[in-house]
Amino acid sequence: MKLIVPLQSVVQGRNGFLLGSLIPCALFYFLQLYLKRRRSNSSNSSNNNNNPSSPSSSSPTPVLPRSSSRSNLSSRGSISRVRVSKLASILSKPDDSLYYIGLDRVLQDPYHVFVNPNGIIQLGLSDNKLCLDLIEKWLVKNLEGSVMGNGDMNLSINGIVPYQPFDGLNELKIALADFMHQVMGGSVEFDPSNMVLTSGATPAIEILSFCLADQGNAFLVPTPFYPGFDRDVRWRPGIDLIPVHCRSTDNFNLNITALEQAFSQARKRGVKVRGILISNPSNPVGNILTPDMLFSLLDFAEDKNIHIIADEVFAGSTYGSEEFVSIAEVLDSEYIDKSRVHIIYGLSKDLSIAGFRVGLIYSHNKTVLDAAKKMSRFATISAPTQRLVTSMLSDKRFIQEYIETNRNRIRRVHDEFVDCLTKLGIKCAKSSAGMFCWADMSGLIKPYSEKGELELWEKFMSVAKINITPGSACHCIEPGWFRICFTTISFEEIPLVIERIRKVVETCKSSS
Amino acid sequence: MKLIVPLQSVVQGRNGFLLGSLIPCALFYFLQLYLKRRRSNSSNSSNNNNNPSSPSSSSPTPVLPRSSSRSNLSSRGSISRVRVSKLASILSKPDDSLYYIGLDRVLQDPYHVFVNPNGIIQLGLSDNKLCLDLIEKWLVKNLEGSVMGNGDMNLSINGIVPYQPFDGLNELKIALADFMHQVMGGSVEFDPSNMVLTSGATPAIEILSFCLADQGNAFLVPTPFYPGFDRDVRWRPGIDLIPVHCRSTDNFNLNITALEQAFSQARKRGVKVRGILISNPSNPVGNILTPDMLFSLLDFAEDKNIHIIADEVFAGSTYGSEEFVSIAEVLDSEYIDKSRVHIIYGLSKDLSIAGFRVGLIYSHNKTVLDAAKKMSRFATISAPTQRLVTSMLSDKRFIQEYIETNRNRIRRVHDEFVDCLTKLGIKCAKSSAGMFCWADMSGLIKPYSEKGELELWEKFMSVAKINITPGSACHCIEPGWFRICFTTISFEEIPLVIERIRKVVETCKSSS
Repeated sequence: MKLIVPLQSVVQGRNGFLLGSLIPCALFYFLQLYLKRRRSNSSNSSNNNNNPSSPSSSSPTPVLPRSSSRSNLSSRGSISRVRVSKLASILSKPDDSLYYIGLDRVLQDPYHVFVNPNGIIQLGLSDNKLCLDLIEKWLVKNLEGSVMGNGDMNLSINGIVPYQPFDGLNELKIALADFMHQVMGGSVEFDPSNMVLTSGATPAIEILSFCLADQGNAFLVPTPFYPGFDRDVRWRPGIDLIPVHCRSTDNFNLNITALEQAFSQARKRGVKVRGILISNPSNPVGNILTPDMLFSLLDFAEDKNIHIIADEVFAGSTYGSEEFVSIAEVLDSEYIDKSRVHIIYGLSKDLSIAGFRVGLIYSHNKTVLDAAKKMSRFATISAPTQRLVTSMLSDKRFIQEYIETNRNRIRRVHDEFVDCLTKLGIKCAKSSAGMFCWADMSGLIKPYSEKGELELWEKFMSVAKINITPGSACHCIEPGWFRICFTTISFEEIPLVIERIRKVVETCKSSS
Repeated sequence: MKLIVPLQSVVQGRNGFLLGSLIPCALFYFLQLYLKRRRSNSSNSSNNNNNPSSPSSSSPTPVLPRSSSRSNLSSRGSISRVRVSKLASILSKPDDSLYYIGLDRVLQDPYHVFVNPNGIIQLGLSDNKLCLDLIEKWLVKNLEGSVMGNGDMNLSINGIVPYQPFDGLNELKIALADFMHQVMGGSVEFDPSNMVLTSGATPAIEILSFCLADQGNAFLVPTPFYPGFDRDVRWRPGIDLIPVHCRSTDNFNLNITALEQAFSQARKRGVKVRGILISNPSNPVGNILTPDMLFSLLDFAEDKNIHIIADEVFAGSTYGSEEFVSIAEVLDSEYIDKSRVHIIYGLSKDLSIAGFRVGLIYSHNKTVLDAAKKMSRFATISAPTQRLVTSMLSDKRFIQEYIETNRNRIRRVHDEFVDCLTKLGIKCAKSSAGMFCWADMSGLIKPYSEKGELELWEKFMSVAKINITPGSACHCIEPGWFRICFTTISFEEIPLVIERIRKVVETCKSSS
């Protein structure tokens, strides 16, 4: 070992080729053998070969001839470790956001009523499982006809198997425009020609970011905000997110003065703000922007000559007294420059088909639409799924029934869940939409800081075995707030979850 | 008009807010009315509203109240046009590559035997339509069971409707590893845990580019190369492509000396070369890299400490005498640093299901895999499609029959097509794989330059009404070469296409 390691560095050095031909063959042979064994061991252990029948280790090495002239070169081994991009270096490191850490930990020990009753219950993901039965019933009845069609076979196969338009089938755009109209209360129309379809809302936000701002520019984002925005806007587009803090005293409602301050502070630092990114209904709070606030936002955006990106993926998942108004409706109501307003929508939330990956960009800006259409090649929805969803959305009776039932079920679970939390002394922010409540547990943390919040999260995870999202992952400025998704469980499972939460609450109270 | 335009500029000026409150209300009302009508006209004409029932123009404007205090602001109109990103500005412009221009022109006037017999025939896209009948037969029989499962319903619905792993289902990875093993002649094994699945090979190349190099770095690419590489590598990753010119005298085979030269020239210019991007089998030439050349490439990459990206999407579409050898097989055969080699694969070519959008990255580099897994959120394949394809690939009898039939049909069309071209005096490069021939029409162009090539392309497009891809779109250094895809037509349609080509050949000869 002591002998070989220095030799290895000599051989692998810049003059390896020259030296390699000078060092006696015998030494070389043993060195190579040693290196080969060492490398293959380390690569096996680092390559995450979870598959028990990993062929690289079990199958015999095939023999492929090579010309002898090059054998010296090959025996030299690797000169040095090959570099990857800065982005890959960062992304390959373990996540530091508790949002992702929580999701990963659930995967390692997921709760199941029979198989793993002591596993972690997933309350950290906005996945709506309350209406899977309706979707299932529809699929069983309609799947085959939806994908393969019922009429001209030749037309059907040509409509799903070869290349299709990358930005989505026209039929699906029309069906989506109808669905959005319906889900948003029938008060606003959407033009299918202003749509670019993508494989989920996640690539829609990313593509829009690439269209609206250059690397190093920034978007203003009211906090608390959806943890995924960091990923969609920062990672590859390289756009910064400037938090605009909203407060519990104001039920975390947006406030134009705070926006003005954040904008002018950014300008002083030389940062170019190119847009405001909002989620409406808000994720994680669940409140809804009033028409008046939407007008103010538009005024602000016009005044600063910046864009508005409105993520409206929870538009149809309302249960409260406040009515949702799309920014598209405000645009229709009077003269406003439409070219700066862009809407994100998708079917993962309001139709709960997250696995289907259907999202869209809605914009009146022709430059943005043209560019987004070209980028949609990197996030195209598969054609069979497009046909399936077109058919599902076109079944008006089903959709009407789904929207109503879904709202009723979300409301029922929400009301019961929030009621139980209140009885435990945990209050939630006033909300009207979404699949989560935004719970104030500041009374349970000690110290009153992000550290205290983190410790409470860890208690929920390891003692109560529930995964919830801490406010810090949503960039909330006040510690002690948590997002709890309640649509991943059934109404009947609420007592179980509440019982687990009670345990933690009691531990906290007894230790204080 | 003469009165209103100067007023508009005053009202829209920076002092609009102040002036707006001074100008009499009546004038304001009429001005706003005028602007609204003018803008809505211009936005309708520019927004590409192909849809005849465009709701924005046909539906009555809804009335949404806003607080009176802000009405002055809104009437001010837009201060100035909102800026988009540099990338969006570039992408929104009309394409300058004849590859895309050709594809667009086909869409506007597509050939159909009955509906549009004088339309443009598509020979510019590698879409394999020779075996749609086999896929169709399989789908009719197996679609429902594949997606919904045949056993536990609850398990099935949970496996397609809610969120699934973003980098692809394990079942599909295993099925893909088997398929790749089979299609590549059974001589190489693939480990499913080294895969990241994406919605097509296009996002796979893009994600890999984001992983391997930083903005401003470069990849070496032998020419002629697939026109899509420009899009996948340059657009969003911002990586440059340095052409390494291959020549007709060498049947466009790769040559290490040319690689060495390109590498050292780039280094002299201060450009960091981070990899070599090859397509093997080559698109557009259709030739195959020999095992010896693969070894040389690996030696070169090790020597320069750079990556190799091998796009092997045509691996199974072979018809010639040369046998395809995957770079994965060479890696297996002796000690080589595997962490620098990455393979792109997909089912759009070898299984001709381009509309399904199934692609993958295969790599032994754990950092790259970890980063690519996170980026796969932007290009996830929909779950119903994943279930469907898993089932299709697991039907071993079908797959075996498909691979054989497909090869036979490609061979039959290729041989006949190339034979007919030869009779017209057009020779093709020697090829063994792919869905195209690489045809030498340098004798038909005048002048012998890119200009001459462009003029010949235009003749094919407007006189012969066939879309083929000119060499310039593939960065070929020698003018007069064209890629002609022959799998978009049936064997029976060959005479029609050849007749159309003959017309152009005769025109060229008569004018020379």
